[in-house]
Amino acid sequence: MRNVFYPSSVAVIGVSARPDNLGRNIVANLVEFGFEGAVHAVGPGGGTIETRRIYHAVGDIPDPVDLAVVLTPAGSVATVLEECGRKGIRWAVVETAGFREYTAAGPALEAEVERVAAKYGIRFVGPNCIGVVNMENGLCVPFPRMNTQLKRGPVSMISQSGGVGLAVFNLMINEGVGLNKFVSVGNMQNVDAEDMLEYLLADEGTGLVFMYLESLRDGRRLMDLARRSSKPVLVFKSNIGGLSRSIALSHTASLSSDDRVVDAAFRQAGILRVHDATALGHGMKILELPPMRGRNLAVISRTGGQAVIAADACELSGFRLATFPDTFLREIEKHFRASVIRLTNPLDLGDLFDLDLYARIVEQTLQLDGVDGVVFLHTSTSDAENLAGRQLLERLSRLSAEYGKPVAFYLSAAAREVSYLKQTYGFPVFTQVVETVRALEMSYEYSSRERPVPEGEGVQALDVNRSAVRALVDHARAEGRALLVSEALAALEHYGIPTARGVTAASLAEAQAAASAMGYPVALKIIAEQISHKSDAGGVKLNLRDEADVSAAHAEMLESVRRAHPSVTPDGVLVQPMVAGGVEMFLGGRQDPQFGPVVLVGLGGIFVELYGDVAVRVAPISRPEAARMVASLRGAQILAGARGRASADVDSLVDALLRVAQLLVDFPEIAELDVNPLRVFEEGRGSRALDARVIPGAAAPG
Amino acid sequence: MRNVFYPSSVAVIGVSARPDNLGRNIVANLVEFGFEGAVHAVGPGGGTIETRRIYHAVGDIPDPVDLAVVLTPAGSVATVLEECGRKGIRWAVVETAGFREYTAAGPALEAEVERVAAKYGIRFVGPNCIGVVNMENGLCVPFPRMNTQLKRGPVSMISQSGGVGLAVFNLMINEGVGLNKFVSVGNMQNVDAEDMLEYLLADEGTGLVFMYLESLRDGRRLMDLARRSSKPVLVFKSNIGGLSRSIALSHTASLSSDDRVVDAAFRQAGILRVHDATALGHGMKILELPPMRGRNLAVISRTGGQAVIAADACELSGFRLATFPDTFLREIEKHFRASVIRLTNPLDLGDLFDLDLYARIVEQTLQLDGVDGVVFLHTSTSDAENLAGRQLLERLSRLSAEYGKPVAFYLSAAAREVSYLKQTYGFPVFTQVVETVRALEMSYEYSSRERPVPEGEGVQALDVNRSAVRALVDHARAEGRALLVSEALAALEHYGIPTARGVTAASLAEAQAAASAMGYPVALKIIAEQISHKSDAGGVKLNLRDEADVSAAHAEMLESVRRAHPSVTPDGVLVQPMVAGGVEMFLGGRQDPQFGPVVLVGLGGIFVELYGDVAVRVAPISRPEAARMVASLRGAQILAGARGRASADVDSLVDALLRVAQLLVDFPEIAELDVNPLRVFEEGRGSRALDARVIPGAAAPG
Repeated sequence: MRNVFYPSSVAVIGVSARPDNLGRNIVANLVEFGFEGAVHAVGPGGGTIETRRIYHAVGDIPDPVDLAVVLTPAGSVATVLEECGRKGIRWAVVETAGFREYTAAGPALEAEVERVAAKYGIRFVGPNCIGVVNMENGLCVPFPRMNTQLKRGPVSMISQSGGVGLAVFNLMINEGVGLNKFVSVGNMQNVDAEDMLEYLLADEGTGLVFMYLESLRDGRRLMDLARRSSKPVLVFKSNIGGLSRSIALSHTASLSSDDRVVDAAFRQAGILRVHDATALGHGMKILELPPMRGRNLAVISRTGGQAVIAADACELSGFRLATFPDTFLREIEKHFRASVIRLTNPLDLGDLFDLDLYARIVEQTLQLDGVDGVVFLHTSTSDAENLAGRQLLERLSRLSAEYGKPVAFYLSAAAREVSYLKQTYGFPVFTQVVETVRALEMSYEYSSRERPVPEGEGVQALDVNRSAVRALVDHARAEGRALLVSEALAALEHYGIPTARGVTAASLAEAQAAASAMGYPVALKIIAEQISHKSDAGGVKLNLRDEADVSAAHAEMLESVRRAHPSVTPDGVLVQPMVAGGVEMFLGGRQDPQFGPVVLVGLGGIFVELYGDVAVRVAPISRPEAARMVASLRGAQILAGARGRASADVDSLVDALLRVAQLLVDFPEIAELDVNPLRVFEEGRGSRALDARVIPGAAAPG
Repeated sequence: MRNVFYPSSVAVIGVSARPDNLGRNIVANLVEFGFEGAVHAVGPGGGTIETRRIYHAVGDIPDPVDLAVVLTPAGSVATVLEECGRKGIRWAVVETAGFREYTAAGPALEAEVERVAAKYGIRFVGPNCIGVVNMENGLCVPFPRMNTQLKRGPVSMISQSGGVGLAVFNLMINEGVGLNKFVSVGNMQNVDAEDMLEYLLADEGTGLVFMYLESLRDGRRLMDLARRSSKPVLVFKSNIGGLSRSIALSHTASLSSDDRVVDAAFRQAGILRVHDATALGHGMKILELPPMRGRNLAVISRTGGQAVIAADACELSGFRLATFPDTFLREIEKHFRASVIRLTNPLDLGDLFDLDLYARIVEQTLQLDGVDGVVFLHTSTSDAENLAGRQLLERLSRLSAEYGKPVAFYLSAAAREVSYLKQTYGFPVFTQVVETVRALEMSYEYSSRERPVPEGEGVQALDVNRSAVRALVDHARAEGRALLVSEALAALEHYGIPTARGVTAASLAEAQAAASAMGYPVALKIIAEQISHKSDAGGVKLNLRDEADVSAAHAEMLESVRRAHPSVTPDGVLVQPMVAGGVEMFLGGRQDPQFGPVVLVGLGGIFVELYGDVAVRVAPISRPEAARMVASLRGAQILAGARGRASADVDSLVDALLRVAQLLVDFPEIAELDVNPLRVFEEGRGSRALDARVIPGAAAPG
């Protein structure tokens, strides 16, 4: 992979002397960015560009070549790679478009390219990409002409869209953020975004990786890479509407949309997700500063109004305005004797304009243990203030580094001055008060991310009967159906989740016998493979108090099921003891195409649907993670015993959640699973699943 | 008021020849902004500044003066106004700080200023403000030196913070948005923000008013002014954390925080609320364009990636991507024969770069009835593209005006080019894809705002027994207590809200007699003036099935109330029939210090607290408004009959909400009111209040 970024020599293939030839731009970019190696131009027409000879074929190049940059018509790429292979070139960047993304012939063309690449052991970036940039050695091979204002810095970028890559370059130039390496991964036919991430996280020059992704190739690998890295990974994942959603056989599927899983997975892996270019700009800037390690913020402002806005933003970002100690305030006060100022946090500097004093106040603030970061709000309306602002910026930059705490500098000034500061100083400048605070929120989010649990630790092996569930699942899959409610509850029992399992009855008489054996009241549920939403079909009868109730309910149920599903012959009814009391919870799981097993928990009943108050995680999960999921629900107060209720047995809920996770991990062939409800009783009394749905997937596992 | 913005002559009082004198800045600003009238400098030291004579006193000015701008020490302002009054000056801008905002002596100083002003009929802006600007005649009297890059345009600004005003000037300069008039209202001692709003909404040069407010003086007047205006009113209301919150005697108080009421009131009045400078910038820019009249958007992009991001943003903003008709696509296709492009919305222009074609595509798109607005996403990385971009911008500007639909132009380019376009063209340029779409969302929000109901129409007069409630409220207020539960339910009955009113029983025997008269099961509730949260004190017993139940519950209740409130002697118990079935809703109301009577509705039970799913409005409300409140709840699905339930009697709920609103409007002395729960039965079966709390305020009404 190093050859992609650090080749000694590059062949640009597809160059001609025609003025609109894009290959010429690539050569020109390499020249303008001062590439340190040799560049060879190749094109069947030959000739010269700017005194440089164009070789007719790759084989004509007299020197060895490390990297081929290919921009020839799609139909010719395989042939070009064949030439490259014969020349001994093992790395290529294929910028050519016109493969699977546009034409019907694309996949066949790609297959031919892949065949040639495999034959020679060539690895390649693309096709359908705009290329690669490395600011360390001036490698710059995109086919659009690149802006040389781009600075060298710590940010590396992987983009699935060339156009977005170009727009982010403009953003970086405008914000004064420096680039280290860039790769446009295009169709990711051979090298994908995760391969590039792995390289860049190990790359010395890269301090932060930004990825623009429209799809995920291997979500698990992305998580693993990010989790193990000490470098921040910022991801803008778009295409949220276009993602395929599973057909909602289960509630779980509709509650854990693909995008919600992406959110959860990123959070678990410590990946910072941004949803627009504004947040991206802030992220790149704030992560260059020392991290915000706690929630205590000090706001120092030249105007009262901005201070008020910042204080609001602190509240919304979950920050606390640090309390200044009296000794500190008295120290400050000495300098303010002449002026009208209120000594609080936010500190309003009033009409006082003394640069040196500002810097000293910031320094004293940074020295306080109770302050994790500082926001300095500056407004400049004249040239004199602009000059003072520049000096202040330098001071703040040094202070932030010295004390290892972020000082987020906001400036309201004319665009030219703001632009000058951003270009000149390697210190971030923010231009909106609210967003300055939001940027610090991002810094705190990153520094307080969940630390990776060492492999194998944390996730507990539970005592389960895997082979019994294997038999149930295999049986159902062989018959091409979901598990019957009785089987689903049995599967949960085998995994150590208590259920109101009940007894299967083939006739009314059997049902009545079962009911009197277990004691009234009881519930009846229809057992039928084709009916997944029993209630909607009238297939659930609750609170039956005696034999007559059971008889009436049985008849009524069969009748309404017959009306709802005329072609279905039920397999019988499930007789369950009525379970009173407790809090109804919802547990679920499914296999996500990108991230594999996913679990969720929420409050049961209609509210899970109305308020979408669920916690989602990629499994496996540790016990503390499961407990955090439960605690993160807004409905958690109900479990804790709000409004005079007894507090519920949260431990048993957490245990059930871990067991559901284990079930999904152990059985990739279980596509979707709902436990709805799980009734959680008072503390110490456990919980019990009353109903469940287990739906195997279509494809057989290996 | 016209004299504040259009004086023929101005006296600047507080000018001296000292180089750091701020009054000099005011004179300099007037000169630099080309004020069309005469300017007189006044200061006790006399002398000259830049060849201009400084008069020793206002009385020395030989000509008449329309407006005095005062920047003298706080202690001297009253004397200065006295001089102004004698000189016949009737309008002043007092920029001096050091009144109530800083010093203990401030209120007394203000009172003296007010006395003098009243004596001479002087009206004044401030104190503690930075002044006034009118770009129509060059009146520019802020004491900081102002940036002359500020353009004349349609936006007028009222700011409660001078510093924020200056920052917004920088924003306007940088975004190329022109100012019409500006006023910093400071402490609003004499002229307040609403006075200024009234003037500016009638002002010919003003097309849009932006207000920065940290507090509201008269929320009702603000609403009325904005509601009657055909000009957009944008408000940044800060200080959300600092607002005093009522002590939460009722749920209503905690659920309808002051900021939530501000949100509701603004929405009712068609005021666009912004929460940061980014949104403000977008608002000012997008509202210059023709409005987005529907939800159908067309996205045209030069790159696929940006198109994907825009499509996501459309989904989040509630827009639909308009479907292009086949004839339209075939027309476009003709021009694209040579190129690889997918003809969908978003329309990805691919590698085609033809300015004229772009403009024609936009024009044809604008001609479609099914398109309400267009987003054009442009990326420019070279000078040639920059030039083309400028021409495109001009074309788009003309097309947007011609077709009366917004064309939001996004550009990714170097900061210098973006800045050039913003300064040069009077057409907005957006630089973030997501925010471009959000800006259009704002345009749609404004154009689809609720239209004001003509005075007196819409709000229905209900048949209520006002005098009966008057007696109950007066009685409770005379005794300095809240209404007893029995009185509260009676008050609701008098206002036409059905209740499970029950019978008050002074003893167990009376309770048992009442219970058997109304039929079992019954509920018992403690009646005691000092106990507002009955359940918490064990003062509610439900589902009592017979005489023995009542006896046990009665004893238990008295015992637990005694334990919880040892000093309280209950007034008896309320015996209510148990009401089964229906959906539990929560109704409430309170008097808001800024907006007066406010009502809210939400799902009852614990969920209203957990999920805060309530709708809030400033009363009075019309029946359709009340129905919209109910429909806006996420929990509205439950009323509509989700998951096999029967649909509920929403009409009766809406009716009860209107009656609660009327009660709050009729009785400003009712500070807080909860109806919790209102049980809403199946359609046609009405609803019934089971419990209520009515808390009169401390202050007697007029």
